[in-house]
Amino acid sequence: MAERFEHVGVVGVGLIGGSLALAARAAGVVGRITGVGRSQANLDVALQRGIVDRAVQDLAAVGPVDLVVLAVPVGTIAAVGRALVPHLRAGTIVTDVGSVKGPIVTALEAALPPTCPFVGAHPIAGTEASGAAAADAALFRGTRCVLTPTERTEPRARGRVAALWQAVGAQVEEMPPDRHDRTLAWTSHVVHAVAYTLARAIATRDAAMLRLAGPSLRDATRVAATAPALWEDIFLANAAAVDGALAALLADLDTLRRAIAAGDAATVGRWLAAGQAARKRLEGGGQ
Amino acid sequence: MAERFEHVGVVGVGLIGGSLALAARAAGVVGRITGVGRSQANLDVALQRGIVDRAVQDLAAVGPVDLVVLAVPVGTIAAVGRALVPHLRAGTIVTDVGSVKGPIVTALEAALPPTCPFVGAHPIAGTEASGAAAADAALFRGTRCVLTPTERTEPRARGRVAALWQAVGAQVEEMPPDRHDRTLAWTSHVVHAVAYTLARAIATRDAAMLRLAGPSLRDATRVAATAPALWEDIFLANAAAVDGALAALLADLDTLRRAIAAGDAATVGRWLAAGQAARKRLEGGGQ
Repeated sequence: MAERFEHVGVVGVGLIGGSLALAARAAGVVGRITGVGRSQANLDVALQRGIVDRAVQDLAAVGPVDLVVLAVPVGTIAAVGRALVPHLRAGTIVTDVGSVKGPIVTALEAALPPTCPFVGAHPIAGTEASGAAAADAALFRGTRCVLTPTERTEPRARGRVAALWQAVGAQVEEMPPDRHDRTLAWTSHVVHAVAYTLARAIATRDAAMLRLAGPSLRDATRVAATAPALWEDIFLANAAAVDGALAALLADLDTLRRAIAAGDAATVGRWLAAGQAARKRLEGGGQ
Repeated sequence: MAERFEHVGVVGVGLIGGSLALAARAAGVVGRITGVGRSQANLDVALQRGIVDRAVQDLAAVGPVDLVVLAVPVGTIAAVGRALVPHLRAGTIVTDVGSVKGPIVTALEAALPPTCPFVGAHPIAGTEASGAAAADAALFRGTRCVLTPTERTEPRARGRVAALWQAVGAQVEEMPPDRHDRTLAWTSHVVHAVAYTLARAIATRDAAMLRLAGPSLRDATRVAATAPALWEDIFLANAAAVDGALAALLADLDTLRRAIAAGDAATVGRWLAAGQAARKRLEGGGQ
């Protein structure tokens, strides 16, 4: 059983922060939860749903917590973490849930005092919905959560954050921040880039074509319904890795395009068979 | 109520042919159904599930039917249609379910006798599964079926095939074959090209990355589990339109890639907002 956090501050009570609060409470691994957010309307939803026990709009009012979860958009995690520093007491563990880790880990390791250990985390879960209204206690069950410790990460804090994610149903995996960012560029960021671009491309050329969308286009573009501001942040925070993965994917797609244009059945057939084999590995959990 | 077909031949009792047989029978718009296929094992499944009343491996044994549905893979529809000609009686309507229409409509209008009217059709439905075991009477409910009549199409046959698809729950839309093929290149064919290529690209570079696949990658590559032979056929049969759509999508993706690499937040933000707006139109049925 994970050691219980008596008082947790969740900064940003949206889909991820709100779901973690619900799930951690259901698992019995947190005591009181204080939510911090800019929107009073969203905080009211969080209070009504029992996601948080107390809601404040001012970081200074978070109170004496033993864990702070930074669950704001990627582009503001570092700034919010810095703004929190004067209000932290010694011993408070700070963690985040950002989809990009390198710049956030670097910024927060530099900004936080040595008495407040930081552990970078990224739960690989989510939907196109947002806000406390979308929070779901089951969101992390059967998913993975990547922790990105560095040589500066305090071992006990790392263990407690890992135990929290395990308690809500995630399988914890650890890797360096830069490897996380290069991996997620491929497994998530280019997927979102394609989804937004494909939907935009069809609507731009002839929106009447959207009427003939079948299940393949609907599934492939589902994530393009996500708030654009979240993904603008992620693409720019991980720009080098996204650039690299996207350039490589474009080169691959161009290879397939040329084989199709040339009527090269053998190359097309081998290409699709390799894609199918890779997809089938995904069904087995990527093993 | 659609006029009933007394005896229907379904050539290729797979996901689409088998589902149409089940759905048409449930709707009461067909009498007897004879299935034609190469695999006796699949025909046995079709018989056991009550998808067909009679199953034969030889086209010559299809018997005196008033409708033939060609539901074999795109690359063999024209050849199977030609092989069927000596066994058709006058008045039999011939239709197909191919995902590419131009070459199939041209070939079958040339091959079939004037007494056997042809109506090209493409139900926009399906899953990554295949075979009679995957057939589902509800597969076409709430979907669209495109008919691609030409000036040669016999009006009564066109009306009866439209009524059949409406009876199984599809909304029928008509357009010329070439417009169908250019549209589907965008709304389906490039989606599949990206799905196979993305899964292949990740596995090729570092298959360990697949472990960190989240829901976005799973949804975006779902259709890459489909049998490669089906998509090799479709890509090659619609090569010019797929080449054009894929080249345009690649140019768009490269525009986004360059904006990300340049840290151009304004361009990235506008791009994603346009993608989100397009995706939201899809949720409204493309209206």
